[in-house]
Formats: sequence, structure tokens, C-alpha cells
Amino acid sequence: MYGRYTQELGVYAKEEAARLRDGGGLRRVTSVRSRSAELLEYEKDPCAKCHVCTSRCQKFLISRVGEDWIFLILLGLVMALVSWVMDYAIAFCQQAQKWMYGGLDSNMLLQYLAWVTYPVVLITFSAGFTQILSPQAVGSGIPEMKTILRGVVLKEYLTFKTFVAKVIGLTCALGSGMPLGKEGPFVHVASLCAALLSKFLAALFGGIYKNELRNTEMLSAACAVGVGCCFAAPIGGVLFSIEVTSTFFAVRNYWRGFFAATFSAFIFRVLAVWNQDEETITALFKTRFRLDFPFDLQELPAFAILGIACGFGGALFVYLNRLIVECMRKQKTINKFLLRKRLVYPAMVTLIISTLTFPPGFGQFMAGQLTQHESLVALLDNRTWCRQGVAEEFDYISHSHAWKHPQVNVFITLILFIVMKFWMSAVATTMPVPCGAFMPVFLIGAAFGRLVGETMAVMFPDGIHADGSVYPIVPGGYAVVGAAALSGAVTHTVSTAVIVFELTGQISHILPVMIAVILANAVAQSLQPSLYDSIIRIKKLPYLPELGMGHHEKYNIRVEDIMVRDVRYITLSSSYREVQEVLMTGQLKTLALVESTDSMILLGSIERSQLQSLLSLQLGPTRRLDHLRRHAQDNGTHTHTLGAHAHLTSLDTMDSPPSPPCTHTHSYTSNTSNTSARHGVRFLPCVRLKVTVTIEILNPLPQIAEWEEQQLDEPVDFNNCKIDPAPFQLVERTSLHKTHTIFSLLGLDHAYVTSTGRLVGVVSLRELRKAIEGSVTVTGVKVRPPLASFRDSGNTTSVSEVTELHKLWNRHRGLSLPREPTPPDMEDQLDLVFLCE
Amino acid sequence: MYGRYTQELGVYAKEEAARLRDGGGLRRVTSVRSRSAELLEYEKDPCAKCHVCTSRCQKFLISRVGEDWIFLILLGLVMALVSWVMDYAIAFCQQAQKWMYGGLDSNMLLQYLAWVTYPVVLITFSAGFTQILSPQAVGSGIPEMKTILRGVVLKEYLTFKTFVAKVIGLTCALGSGMPLGKEGPFVHVASLCAALLSKFLAALFGGIYKNELRNTEMLSAACAVGVGCCFAAPIGGVLFSIEVTSTFFAVRNYWRGFFAATFSAFIFRVLAVWNQDEETITALFKTRFRLDFPFDLQELPAFAILGIACGFGGALFVYLNRLIVECMRKQKTINKFLLRKRLVYPAMVTLIISTLTFPPGFGQFMAGQLTQHESLVALLDNRTWCRQGVAEEFDYISHSHAWKHPQVNVFITLILFIVMKFWMSAVATTMPVPCGAFMPVFLIGAAFGRLVGETMAVMFPDGIHADGSVYPIVPGGYAVVGAAALSGAVTHTVSTAVIVFELTGQISHILPVMIAVILANAVAQSLQPSLYDSIIRIKKLPYLPELGMGHHEKYNIRVEDIMVRDVRYITLSSSYREVQEVLMTGQLKTLALVESTDSMILLGSIERSQLQSLLSLQLGPTRRLDHLRRHAQDNGTHTHTLGAHAHLTSLDTMDSPPSPPCTHTHSYTSNTSNTSARHGVRFLPCVRLKVTVTIEILNPLPQIAEWEEQQLDEPVDFNNCKIDPAPFQLVERTSLHKTHTIFSLLGLDHAYVTSTGRLVGVVSLRELRKAIEGSVTVTGVKVRPPLASFRDSGNTTSVSEVTELHKLWNRHRGLSLPREPTPPDMEDQLDLVFLCE
Repeated sequence: MYGRYTQELGVYAKEEAARLRDGGGLRRVTSVRSRSAELLEYEKDPCAKCHVCTSRCQKFLISRVGEDWIFLILLGLVMALVSWVMDYAIAFCQQAQKWMYGGLDSNMLLQYLAWVTYPVVLITFSAGFTQILSPQAVGSGIPEMKTILRGVVLKEYLTFKTFVAKVIGLTCALGSGMPLGKEGPFVHVASLCAALLSKFLAALFGGIYKNELRNTEMLSAACAVGVGCCFAAPIGGVLFSIEVTSTFFAVRNYWRGFFAATFSAFIFRVLAVWNQDEETITALFKTRFRLDFPFDLQELPAFAILGIACGFGGALFVYLNRLIVECMRKQKTINKFLLRKRLVYPAMVTLIISTLTFPPGFGQFMAGQLTQHESLVALLDNRTWCRQGVAEEFDYISHSHAWKHPQVNVFITLILFIVMKFWMSAVATTMPVPCGAFMPVFLIGAAFGRLVGETMAVMFPDGIHADGSVYPIVPGGYAVVGAAALSGAVTHTVSTAVIVFELTGQISHILPVMIAVILANAVAQSLQPSLYDSIIRIKKLPYLPELGMGHHEKYNIRVEDIMVRDVRYITLSSSYREVQEVLMTGQLKTLALVESTDSMILLGSIERSQLQSLLSLQLGPTRRLDHLRRHAQDNGTHTHTLGAHAHLTSLDTMDSPPSPPCTHTHSYTSNTSNTSARHGVRFLPCVRLKVTVTIEILNPLPQIAEWEEQQLDEPVDFNNCKIDPAPFQLVERTSLHKTHTIFSLLGLDHAYVTSTGRLVGVVSLRELRKAIEGSVTVTGVKVRPPLASFRDSGNTTSVSEVTELHKLWNRHRGLSLPREPTPPDMEDQLDLVFLCE
Repeated sequence: MYGRYTQELGVYAKEEAARLRDGGGLRRVTSVRSRSAELLEYEKDPCAKCHVCTSRCQKFLISRVGEDWIFLILLGLVMALVSWVMDYAIAFCQQAQKWMYGGLDSNMLLQYLAWVTYPVVLITFSAGFTQILSPQAVGSGIPEMKTILRGVVLKEYLTFKTFVAKVIGLTCALGSGMPLGKEGPFVHVASLCAALLSKFLAALFGGIYKNELRNTEMLSAACAVGVGCCFAAPIGGVLFSIEVTSTFFAVRNYWRGFFAATFSAFIFRVLAVWNQDEETITALFKTRFRLDFPFDLQELPAFAILGIACGFGGALFVYLNRLIVECMRKQKTINKFLLRKRLVYPAMVTLIISTLTFPPGFGQFMAGQLTQHESLVALLDNRTWCRQGVAEEFDYISHSHAWKHPQVNVFITLILFIVMKFWMSAVATTMPVPCGAFMPVFLIGAAFGRLVGETMAVMFPDGIHADGSVYPIVPGGYAVVGAAALSGAVTHTVSTAVIVFELTGQISHILPVMIAVILANAVAQSLQPSLYDSIIRIKKLPYLPELGMGHHEKYNIRVEDIMVRDVRYITLSSSYREVQEVLMTGQLKTLALVESTDSMILLGSIERSQLQSLLSLQLGPTRRLDHLRRHAQDNGTHTHTLGAHAHLTSLDTMDSPPSPPCTHTHSYTSNTSNTSARHGVRFLPCVRLKVTVTIEILNPLPQIAEWEEQQLDEPVDFNNCKIDPAPFQLVERTSLHKTHTIFSLLGLDHAYVTSTGRLVGVVSLRELRKAIEGSVTVTGVKVRPPLASFRDSGNTTSVSEVTELHKLWNRHRGLSLPREPTPPDMEDQLDLVFLCE
């Protein structure tokens, strides 16, 4: 890349030199200059949008505790405020819709139009606003956070623009009453908030807030805050965020999440008290189940079946969601149309969904006029809706009319609600607005649980308890269990159990909930990836997939099967030309440094940028000027270089500060590109040049080119180069499983594969991902000798390594002691015999 | 060590050869043989009682899921049964004491004797039984499990004997009514159970159950089961066990703990239902607090103060506990006496404590006759004990008479209870019986919370709520908060919050509990280590301490400051003699293999046992026999070696199976030691020898010694040696903090320190521990040049490394291209300039 820049500029300079003599090439040169500058800037940050943190040390840092506390308090405070204000705004939006709908009850058509237009406008606005301001704000945000916490920097995802887009877009999207959730986006909002807060504090106080590594730790706390202040569930929030975003969790960072989430949840609920919404701090969806006899032991099978059914349901939801996205993508005509008219899809989806939920229409059979919050409150009610199969004592909840239909049984209403909401939620979450799927799924789960509970209540009207006392069945308990199980199945988490306890303020159903959640997880995990992993795959985010359980073939895949053997490296005796070539061909962020091409002993790794600056130094303007000056002095009497001489002399007079012995930085006063291009001198843009002199050099190009070739042939001077002397190394026989663990644990981007110190290959995140995703492994792996696969995987010494070692050893022995020669075949055989013992 | 064996046996063989000629040395020889065998066996497992798993790959293994489920179900089942039976037995013991005490109420003295004798007998039996069967069963077990899960194998801690000792000892100790807990030991019991179950299943089915690595994962699940089935708190159990035992936690192993703990808690509670103790599954210490208004917002400062006070109290408890142990140790006379009469101390402590709690005596002022369970139930009661400072409506709990004293205020009773129980618990947990401190601390916390709550109730008799409605203060809520906060402070965990919710079956006080627990943790962590870390220090377990927060000096300590520079290594051209010397001097489990003493390029590491077998092979019996045979053939006509010749010939005739070309294993039929000693041939005990021939060799020793010397001078044949080609490497400038993280993450035992491939030092757990514990670092560190400490810690290239690299590079350059020489000082200076920029 650097080379391309040099060459391009060289070619252009020649052309421009010719044109300048004709006059009027000035503008073109400027444009060329800027293109080159762009190229170079791009090169400096090879993938500006997504580069992977390489240094494995970056993960580990403890920062000063006092400053952490302040940061976490601020974060909790801000997020609680955001959450509360957003809830208020959402409630206001929904109230406005109800008011409009209620006010127009004289005319059904007007009512319908109001009911439909309102959400369509809101969702379209949300989609358009997000699209314009920051497309990164679309969707849940948990998959992105998972990727970011893995160590991959998705820079655009943590900007102020994204924050604004996410908060406003989410408020509108939720205000529309669509089956969308707040929780996923809130994890993203909290992370954004943490990132911005860090930047802000760094700007104010500097110091520790500038530390990138600390910020990663804070992000993980922020995720907990996001869930915590969304549901007022600090413990569940911490656990959920750990389960959803982490692979390995440092227990010493635990307290951060707990502290911030608790503080945030506290403020969130205190705001409600201060606003006189609540008398004191209680749960968000408070239930009032019996404490002394929450459930009977004989109900447990029903809970278990509910859990298993939720497991299947969860897997189906993830599958459906992915299917919709993939269908849309595959249908090229639809895809093209939608890409052009981005707002059509959300508007259409909203139109269909809101038409179906129109209360006087189909909505009457599925409690269409209720908001999510109202539905959930109703579903978690501790009273039984139907005792004898018909809705009898069913007029005490404020939302009763929604579920009680004069012609239709409560069961039908519930089933319709579940089925319709299921696909609606799956479709709605594919809209390009900020939205999560947790809450809709939670609601569907609660409805399903309520359905099972009501069925149980009908089957056992006096409860199942054998002894004298009658304990009627509590369908609300089933709703709680169903909600936890289905949301657990979709997200592949166990901590939804804790979230429901904190949401409902009751822990009496702990055992049924735990049993159902575990069973649901077991079923769902064996059928589908979690929703977040599914989105990671759909979005093709640079995340390392988890090793599935029971994938035994992974144990037989070795690093040597997946590594790239054609490693780009430089040696201690490399010339600058070789460095240039290596830089031009490869894309890796760091390059291996080996002793020599023969020995291939890995000495360390050098960052690409370091090599670029080495090259710049070698071909830089100061050395060019030196060369030109020397050249001019040599040919001072000749006519055609007189100009150049004059130029250089004038430069000398302008050199005001005495330059340091090694790093010469001259200051000139003018526009770089023009002069440099005119001179044919390839000034590097990073050096400030303010040359006013505009003397024409008649023809110095051949000399410069010659000089450049000379310079490129010189061996590299590694003196001014930072070398990482301990890049991470694997051996050829390291198993895929171990490699995956080490990459995950240390957040590696790539690792060198060595064999007794000799560099033989490199494995990067890409190869690993490919190997794990399986497409390569089945067909593409190198077939190993039959004996090798029977070998113990704990045995880290491989035949090839031993052979290598023995070669080295034989060489040594050959020098020190004569010995009867062993045929090499024999020697290898001996190794095999030993290793297979 | 090996060398010592060889030498010793050599000396003895000479002596014995002399004695044999006098006759009658047979018995002595046998005893020598066995001593040598012991030595060799010891050598094979260099520290049989505590060796550290070195291979970092061992940590990571996913096993087949189906087998995991079965294992976890079995584990949960067994532990639930154990827990339930133990609870039953403990309740029975306590009932027996009460019955005895009650039956003797005619005579105070008899009553006292019964009250005191019963616990003394039980505790003495528990201490004696544990001492005799397995001293490892003493104490909590959590510190040991923490160490084991860190990767250090404390073998004796997971045997069947320990299991029996722990279960019976614990039952007796708890049955005595002393302020001891069940939770810590239960973690140990569950781990024991998991280890034994693994062994049992491995014996039955083999396969996956034999896998050591899987067992570690199972141990971590077992810890969760231990807490889970002790308190019927699955979620809290999982979290508590993670916080207490792990440093880095693999989220993918999360489900194991949840599943096993849930199943175990379920069975534990189901047993109670089946036994008709309970109607259905509910919490262990069910509370009945108001749901709609659990606490007022204005009570939060009181909760916060309670949390902070508990923080100080927790720190004090840990300090007191350690102080008692250290006092006992320092007082040499006491120490000696106690070491001789091991049962005196527990008996004395029990006598004092039970005398003080004697109900008609001092016990009447501190609810002495109540068991822990009864006290806790009373403390968590939702009714207020005193409204106006005197106990008014105080006769509805069954245990009321214990707290209500005709002359004494409830406050005095509570304060006395807290103060007395505080020191009693601290003392009682130092007794050499299986016991934990969690439950006593929990109880003290509850009492302290109740005290604060009652005080609040007196101060605000009508509650603090400003609006019309009266919500009286619930002192039981304070008790819950206090219990969570104090136990959290002592153990440095946040998850005690979850445990109290699961224990009480109510989550309504979530915010006060979380706030108090976090504050208590913040205070306690800044004052004292956790109780478990304190015990780890007291017991000097091989655990890597945590890096304290805010220890900034740790960032400035580098590996080079703490590493051992005098590394034992072998080279590719080492002779056997050198290997022998290295084995004799060092104690490390693995030895570094370098290219040569000059280059010092690290090639890999070899396990000690591998080198030992190499040595055995070189000096082994087959090669000895070969030598003897050749020697005999050479001198066949001489008289004095005729016997030897005959011997060898007879051996030849007995060689029935043709030996393989490389590994010769001869079978003889006789007692090894006699013949080998008599022959002066140093047979290695590991080779089966059944020689019947008893021919005397007159004087072959000089030849053998000479031959041995020859053999030792030969270079080592590394063909049959497993070499780990990628031992973990650090560089000199790696910070202590990073080193600590890597050691913790990967469970390392030692790491080599290299500088551009050259071995310069080694860091083991020991050095790291020393450095972290700080005693060394303050005075013992190498002083760094002033400039160096200002350098960015993220900069992994150090001056020395760069210099090393440059030397190498200069050497290369010197070969390829001549260049004007730079003075070495100048070159270093340039590096510094660059690095400090």
C-alpha cells in the first residue's frame, strides 16, 4: 500500500513535471496530493472502521478505585434518568394514541386511520431518523456489544450521534406500540453512555479516563447498568449481561457491575417515587401470589412441560427471525426495492401489525388495545381468569375487557394472542429501527404460561393438593415461569430467572422457574443459536463463535490444519525494498520478524505502522534533501542544476533551529504538494513543509529515482523500531479447542505458529472462525496419518516437532561427538514407537 | 535426588558386598532396598502431597454433555440426601440436648452438667475422630477448594476418608449447638462427593470420567451444589461459589452449576415435603413481610449505615479470628501443650461457650437456649418486638421467652447476644473440627440488623412515611439486610444478597440489601482480606493472592525484578552427568531445554520425570548386563570373573521371548534386591527381575563404576523424550500485574523469561506470591534507572531487549554489509530517545 502510494505519486510527479512546463497543472496536482494523503491515512489505520485490538495485555488493567466509583455513579445516574425519561415519553406517546383513538369513536374509519397512522408515522420517523443520523443505532445492540467486548473495535458504534439516534429512535419505536423491547437497545445506550462519559471525563480531567483498557471494563459494567435500569433488576442485569456478552469473566470486576446497576436501578425507581407514581420502591411488575403455598409439588411436571415447550418456542422464534431476514435478502427484487426505499419496509410492517391489532377489528380477539405493560400486568395477575372454562369472575382488572370477549373463550383469546404476537414480534424486530426482542418474547412467554396455568386451573378446580386444605392453582405463577423460560430460551441465558424475580418482586416460584428455565435452555441450545448469536451471524460481525458442545471433531483439528503457511515476514537482514514489498502484499496489522530466511527463528513482531515509519524515514524528505544537496555540490558548476543549487542554498539559510543530531525536522513555509510535485521530490505529507521558494529544477528526476533505488536496497535499520519480543505463539499440534480458548481468554487477533522456535505459520481470527463454523473443517482439513489421530491430545509433542528438535540435536551432536549414523527413517520410527506407547 | 539414590545404593552395595562375604547381611540389604525404592518413588512424584498442574491446556475441556447431566444429577441427589440426613441428625442431637436439659430441671447442677457435658463430648469426639481419620477435614474447606480450583492439587483433601471424617465430624460439631456453620464444610463435602463420584464412575464406565480436567470443571459445579443444597439457594449458591472460588470464570460452564444446584436444592426441599415437615416447597427461613410497602425511601440512610457498620464488623471478625490463631501459635508453651493434647483446646472452648450460654445462668440474657435455626427464625420475624422501648406484644413467637427477660430490655438482650456471639463465633471457628463461619456470622448480622430495626421502630413508632397512611417500620427487614451485609463483609461477596432472598423467600427488600451489601463490601475489602483468604494465609496454602485494588506500585514491578536468574537448564549437547546434576540441585517440575550454553535459545521444556527415565534408561539394568556380558566375554578366561560369566550365560538361556530391538525387557524369576545388591549391580527397582541364579561375583565393582562414569559422560539421547516445545514465556519488562493475570487465567505454575529467544530467567508461583505479598517488593527490588519508570507500561519493548536485538542484528549486518561504526553508547541513547518520545 505504501509502495502504491510511492509509485503513484512518482508517476504523477513525472507527469506533472511535464505538464508544469506547459503550465496550468496546478489544480490536478493538488487533487493528486489529497488522494495520496487519503491513501496514506487509510494505510495508517488499515481498517478504520473495525480493527482488532492485538495486544493481549490491553485487557488487564485495574484502575484507581475512587475514580471508578465516581464514574459508575455518574453512569448509573445518567442511565437512570435516560431510562425514566424515555419510559415517560413512551407512556405519553401511547397515551396520545389511546386518546386519539378514544376521541374518534364516533367514526370507525377515522378511528382506524388514527390507530394505524400514528404508529406508522412514529416508526417511519424512527427508521428515517436513525438511517440519517447513524445507521449503527439500528437493532438490539447486544450482538455489537458482545463483539466489542470480545476486543473488536466497532468504532462508529460508540459515538454521540449513535447515542442520539438510538435514544430518540427507540423512544419513537416503543411509543408506536409495536411489539418491540427496550432491553437490548438499552444495553447499547448504556455502553454509549459509558463511552461518551469516559471521553468527556478524559477531556475534563485526563489521566485515567483516557485509558482505553479501563474503558473496556467500564463497558462491561455499562451492559449490566443497561439491563439493570431497564427492568430495575440489578442482580439479574449483572448476570444477564455477563451471560450475554462475556466468554470469560474476571470475578474481580464483578463489583463494578453490581454497584453501577444497583445505583442505577435505585435512582430509576426513586424517580418514580419522587414523581408520585409510586408510594415507595417496589418491583416494576409487582405480583401478589400466596406466600405460604405458592405451588404444589405435583404441579412441577406441568412446569417442566411448560419449560420444554418454551425451549422449542424459543428456538422457533430465533429460526423465524433469521428466516425472515434471509428471505428478504435472497429475494433480489425485494431486496433492491427495499434498499432503495428504506422506509417502505418498516412502514408496511407497522401497517400490517397495527391493522391486525385494531381493537374493533381482529384486535378484539387478542387484547389488541393493551400496551405491552398493561398486558404483562394482566397476565401476571394472581387471580384465576376462568374456573369452569368460561370467564366468570372476570371484571376486577382494569384491563379485563381486553381479554374478556362476549363470544370468545379466554383460551381462544390467549391462543390468538400468542400466535399473532409470536410472528409479529419476529417480524417487527427485523425492522431497521432501534429495538430489542426481549420484552416481546417475555410477554409471549407470560401469555403461554398463563394459558397453561388456566388450563391447569380448569383441570384441577380445587387444586391438586391431597390433604384437606384447598389451594387453588395460581395461573399467574405459570405466567411468571413461562416468561422466564421463553426469554431464557431465546437468549440462551439462565439469569432471566433472576430478572423475573426482580421484576415481580416475588421469589416464591424459584424452583419451578429454575427448572423451566434450565429445561428451556437445554432444548433451545441444542436446536438453535441464541438470538444474539444469530444476529451476529446475520450481520457477519467479526465475532469468534462459541465452540458448540459435543463437537468432538474439533478435538481432532489442529492448528496446522487451519494455519496460513505463507507467512509474511521480515528478517534481520531485510532490505527496505523487501519491507516495502511485504507491506504491499499483506494486510495483517503486525509482521513477524525472523532471524533469517534460513533459520526462520521467530524473534518478535513489528507493527505495520512501525515499518511504515521506518520506510518514511529512509525515503524521507530530509534524506532526499541531503542527497540533492550533495548532488548539487558535486555538480555545482553545471548549468542545468544551478536552480537546484540555489534552491538548496536558500533552504539552508532558512534553517533557523539547529536540528538534533539524528532526527532532522526542517521547517519551511509553503504549500507542500505544489512544490514537492514540481520538484519531483516525493515529500511525505506527514512532514510539515512551508517552502516559499519556487525555483524550477530542470531535470533531477533520474538522480532521485536512482537514489531511491539505492536507498531501498539498503538493509533496514531496526534501531528506531518498537519490536514486540513476545508475540503469542502456538505449536502445530495445538488443538482447535485450545486455540479457541486462548484466543477468547486473551482476546488475541492472531498468533504465530512455531516449531522449535522456527516460524511455520500464522493463525488469525479469520482462520479460526472459518474452522469453527465448520464449512472448512469437514472437507478442507489436511488428512492426518491414521496413527496420529489416536494419539493422546494432552501430548503436546508431535512427531514433526520431535523430528525438528532431533535434527537440531543431531547437528549439535555431529559437531561434538561422532556416533554411528542412524538412518533417518529408523529415527522417526523410534519417535512414533515412543509416542504411541 | 536421583543421584542421591544412586550414590546411596552404591555405598550400601559396597558395604553389603563386604558383609555378604561374612554372611548374614540379607535382612539389612532388603531394608536398604526398600528405602531406596521409597526414595525413587518419592522422586517420581516430587511432592506427592501438593503438586501443581503445569500444563495450561489442562484447564480447557468440554466433555460429552449427556454424561455431564447424569453426573450432575447424581451429584445433586447424593448431596441433597447428605444435607437432609445431616440436618435431621443435627436436629435430633439438639433435641436430645434439650430433652436432657429439660428432664433435669429439678437440679440446677445436674442441669448444668448435662448442658455442658453434651456439647463437650460431641465436639471432643468430632475433633478426635477428624484428627484420627483425616486431619484434612478440619475447618471450612472453602480455602482449600479455592486453592484446588486454582490448579494446585491438594490430594489428601479429596479422599473417601476425608469425606467420612467431614460428614460425621460436621454432624457432631453442629449437633453440639456451638456457633458453627454448615455452609463452608458443605462446599468441601460436595467437592469430595464429586471427586469420589468421578472415581466411582471412572471405575465403572471408564472413558470420560477418567478425565482429570473434566473433574476440575465438575468440582466448580460441586461448590455451587454445596452452597445450593445447604441453604436451598441454587442461584445464590452458584454465584457465591463463583465469587469465593474463582478468579476467572468461563461462562460456558455456568449451566453446570445452575443445573446441579437447582436439582440438589429441589431434592433437598422435596425430601422435607415427603417427610411431612412442610406442605410444599418453600424457602428455608420464610418471611412474611408486607409486599406493597416493604420499606420507606427515608429508611434507606439507616440501611446504608447498617451496611457500613456491618463492613467494619466483618473486618473485625476476620481480624479477630486471625488474631486468635496467631496468638495460639506465638505462645510457645500453649502451642506445645495444645499440639500434644489436641483435644484439650476444643473441649475447653466448648466448655466456656456452653457455660456462658447456660439458660438459667448468663444464657438467659442472650437467648442462650435457642439453636441457631430458632434464633434466626425469631430474628427474621416480621413483627416488631418492642414499640415503646419495652417488650409489649411479645408472646406470639414460640421462642419469645428466650428474648423476653422480665428484668432486661430487649435491646440489652440483643446487644449481649451480638457481642457474646461475635467473639464466641470467632473463637469457635478456630477449633480443629469441620466447621464454617458463614451461618454464625449470618446470625450475628441478623441480630445486629434487628437491633437497628428495633431502634428505628422506637424512634419512629408510626413509620416515617409523610403521607396519611401509617406504615410501621419492619425490624425483620433490617435483620435480613444485616445478615446479608455482615456475611457479605466477612466473605467479600455480593451474592449473599441473593442467598438471603432465597433463604427468606422474599425479594422485596432488594434495594436496601444490595446497598448495604455493597457498602459493607467496600468497607471490609479496604480493611481486611476475606475470611477465606485470611485462612489461606494462616494455613500457608499455595494460593496466588489477588492483586489488591489501588496497589499502584505493582505496575512498576517488572518480571525482571522478581525472576530467578539462576535457571536450571539442559542443553542439546548436555551429558547425562549434567542432567543428573541438574536433577539433584533443582526442585522444579520441568526443566528448560536450551540450544547451547552460548546461545541460550529456549527450545522447550522437559518434565523432570522424562529426564529421570532417560537417566534410568542410560544406566538401566539391560545396558549394565550388556556391559557385564561384554566385559565377561573379554575376560572370560580369567578366574575371578568366571562366576559372572556363568551368571550371564544362565541369564541368556532364560531369555525366552525375543526382545524388541529398542526396549529390552528381560524377565527373571527371583527376588531383585538380594541378587542385585550381591552382584553390586544397581538394578533399578522398576524393572521386574526374577533371577534365581545366586552366583557370587567376586569383584566386578570397579568395572561397573568405571562404566557408569563413561555412561554419564555420554551426551543425552533426546529421542525418547517428550519435549513441550512451547512453554509459556514472558519478557523481562512484563509487569507484575500482567504476569499475575496470565498466571491466574491459564493456571500456570511457572513461566520462562526470555529475551529475543534467549532464556534469562524463570518465574514461578512462589516468586509471584512473594512479590504480591509485598514483603519483598518494597526493599528487594532491583532499582531501575529513573527514566525507565516513566515509560509507558503498554510499551512492551524494553531497552535491554532492543539492545539484544540490535546486537543480533549488528552481527548480521556485520556479515552482510560494512557500515561506519556507531559507538554502543550512542546506539543505546538513540533507543532511549525513541522510546521516550
